[in-house]
Amino acid sequence: MTLHESIDVIKRGCDELLLETELNQKLVLGRPLRIKAGFDPTAPDLHLGHTVLLNKMRQLQELGHHALFLIGDFTGMIGDPTGKNTTRPPLSREQVLANAESYREQVFKVLDPDKTEIVFNSTWMDKFSAADLIKLAATHTVARMLERDDFGKRYKSNQAIAIHEFIYPLIQGYDSVALKADLELGGSDQKFNLLMGRELQKHDGQPPQCVLTMPLLLGLDGVNKMSKSLGNYIGITESPQEMFGKLMSVSDKLMWCYLELLSFESMTTIAKWRTEVENERNPRDIKVLFAQEIVTRFHNRAAAEKALTEFETRFKQGVLPEDMPKVTVSASTGTIGIAQLLKQAGLVESTSEALRMITQGAVKLDGERVIDKALQLQTGAVVVTQVGKRKFARVTVG
Amino acid sequence: MTLHESIDVIKRGCDELLLETELNQKLVLGRPLRIKAGFDPTAPDLHLGHTVLLNKMRQLQELGHHALFLIGDFTGMIGDPTGKNTTRPPLSREQVLANAESYREQVFKVLDPDKTEIVFNSTWMDKFSAADLIKLAATHTVARMLERDDFGKRYKSNQAIAIHEFIYPLIQGYDSVALKADLELGGSDQKFNLLMGRELQKHDGQPPQCVLTMPLLLGLDGVNKMSKSLGNYIGITESPQEMFGKLMSVSDKLMWCYLELLSFESMTTIAKWRTEVENERNPRDIKVLFAQEIVTRFHNRAAAEKALTEFETRFKQGVLPEDMPKVTVSASTGTIGIAQLLKQAGLVESTSEALRMITQGAVKLDGERVIDKALQLQTGAVVVTQVGKRKFARVTVG
Repeated sequence: MTLHESIDVIKRGCDELLLETELNQKLVLGRPLRIKAGFDPTAPDLHLGHTVLLNKMRQLQELGHHALFLIGDFTGMIGDPTGKNTTRPPLSREQVLANAESYREQVFKVLDPDKTEIVFNSTWMDKFSAADLIKLAATHTVARMLERDDFGKRYKSNQAIAIHEFIYPLIQGYDSVALKADLELGGSDQKFNLLMGRELQKHDGQPPQCVLTMPLLLGLDGVNKMSKSLGNYIGITESPQEMFGKLMSVSDKLMWCYLELLSFESMTTIAKWRTEVENERNPRDIKVLFAQEIVTRFHNRAAAEKALTEFETRFKQGVLPEDMPKVTVSASTGTIGIAQLLKQAGLVESTSEALRMITQGAVKLDGERVIDKALQLQTGAVVVTQVGKRKFARVTVG
Repeated sequence: MTLHESIDVIKRGCDELLLETELNQKLVLGRPLRIKAGFDPTAPDLHLGHTVLLNKMRQLQELGHHALFLIGDFTGMIGDPTGKNTTRPPLSREQVLANAESYREQVFKVLDPDKTEIVFNSTWMDKFSAADLIKLAATHTVARMLERDDFGKRYKSNQAIAIHEFIYPLIQGYDSVALKADLELGGSDQKFNLLMGRELQKHDGQPPQCVLTMPLLLGLDGVNKMSKSLGNYIGITESPQEMFGKLMSVSDKLMWCYLELLSFESMTTIAKWRTEVENERNPRDIKVLFAQEIVTRFHNRAAAEKALTEFETRFKQGVLPEDMPKVTVSASTGTIGIAQLLKQAGLVESTSEALRMITQGAVKLDGERVIDKALQLQTGAVVVTQVGKRKFARVTVG
């Protein structure tokens, strides 16, 4: 592969590369570059949004480079020192190691274990004294920190910024010094912190790392970034059926963005598909190929085939999935309302969602659309219950 | 002494006491209070301005309290971590101890050694880890720090504030936690930092220290604060004659301020003197008493008597001081100009100062005013040379 082609692979889907000329100089050295990416030490439960960065690391590994998977456990073991954020309790060393193990299980579905080094910043930061930290803090000014978007906004709107928050980007930057990173990857919201690494390496007399930022992946809604709390995500440990179905539900437009950031197909192939779709090929065909690639990556080829077969059977022929979950709901008074049944069966979040789904005609019992929101079911009834296209359960009223 | 009288002594000359009600509560406990005052670890060369705080400590010692003379060596041993301020090189442990010894020699002219504990904040700060410092930094916000006058002004005028500068007041405050201080003394420009101590003690669950700020002493000019660089100071190691002469040169107005802040005479006595002066007593009489008190404190009673006698003889009768220094100046060509002679004799800083003093009629040889700036003296000449009122030397032209 030529240098030019390598750069194209590296830049694929990226937001920004700083500085391309410097990266060129590093690439011609011919040695494996040290590619850093930092991860939160709290319990990982990754979704496809997180894999955008992992995919980029994987692409770099395929170009022969060395991935430094950095777990920021030093600050994780401090927790939230203000004590205000109860969702960030201090982690013990054991929890950090357990979480690292959980990362390992998940990320090696994408990364090449032979070219990945999992590192913990506590390794060097635990040796830092207060005096060392003061010297680190002295390398930057308050004004420089307030240039970071979120700090600037919070300061202007009188929202508290605790002083240690100014130290965290410096520690993250110092990690690049400790690791002698050549290139750091991160989300585009991390640009400021990644540049700290450059500055601190220069301060330390090292050649500064290049910085490659990746965009945030949009969620299934095509509007907001993929996020667990918004419910618009695909978890990488979800079942093949669920994953396949969700990927098939992606809009024809969003599909191209997912292909660029999530597929390992070359951009040449993707461009070819795009032309075909413009020339009347059904985008559904491409989605099937893509959904199979992803299910294969996180499960295997057989599971992907099975998911496809089931998907086609279910939606083409209206047949129910084989391995439908069996649940029992409790009708304490001898009968249960349909909305309550759907909620207890876990097919909807709330009874109000249940009523909305009924209004939309999205609820079926034994294949029959439910119209009556006041419908009651008797104890002993067993019904195949369906909400929307993909949610099924065999419900027993107990 | 009643509680009320104690409070009066404590508040004498002070700028601010926070909070008087809390100090009352501490005083009624009946135990010796722990009185903290922080000092710079760089080579001390104290002048009367510095003794304002020491005098207050001494007054508190006389009330039975325990003085904690804190040397801030932890940051002193870091020096200026930005490397920009070359006047603040990192101190070695040996230099810190030598400086502490020098402090001891000077401050025990004021403080009671039996009720003074010299402490070093490196004792606890050297044990601080980076994580401990992060937790300390998390106790305060950026906005709170920018409330400090000098930080706020610098930020607004785009002057750099390095991040570690926000940490230093926190360390100073933490010293109060480590020392379990009941009361901290400082200059009025230190109020913000002293309040940090209060806040961090509360954060740590300790009763917060009270804070007593003292004004900055005006220099001999009665305009600017006393400072070495402004030349308007009286060093505590100056000779009895020099000290006495300088104190006698203080204006009649400034004298009252000096009495309040520097004298150990009671405020009742001082008030009586004030009434006397208002009723035509010569303020010079009070100045003599005061100058003798100060010379006695830093030298001894005999030196004070002698300084007074000499001062009176010299200025009342125009006679020269007994122990005039003898110096030899070098006339390599057989003669020496008057300006060069004055400079070589150390009576002026430069020949241009010499010429200015001659113009002002301030130079005398053997009691005769010199008018001719081009005056030459021959090798072998011996002249009593005088510049201004207090500088004398017996000069031999060698």
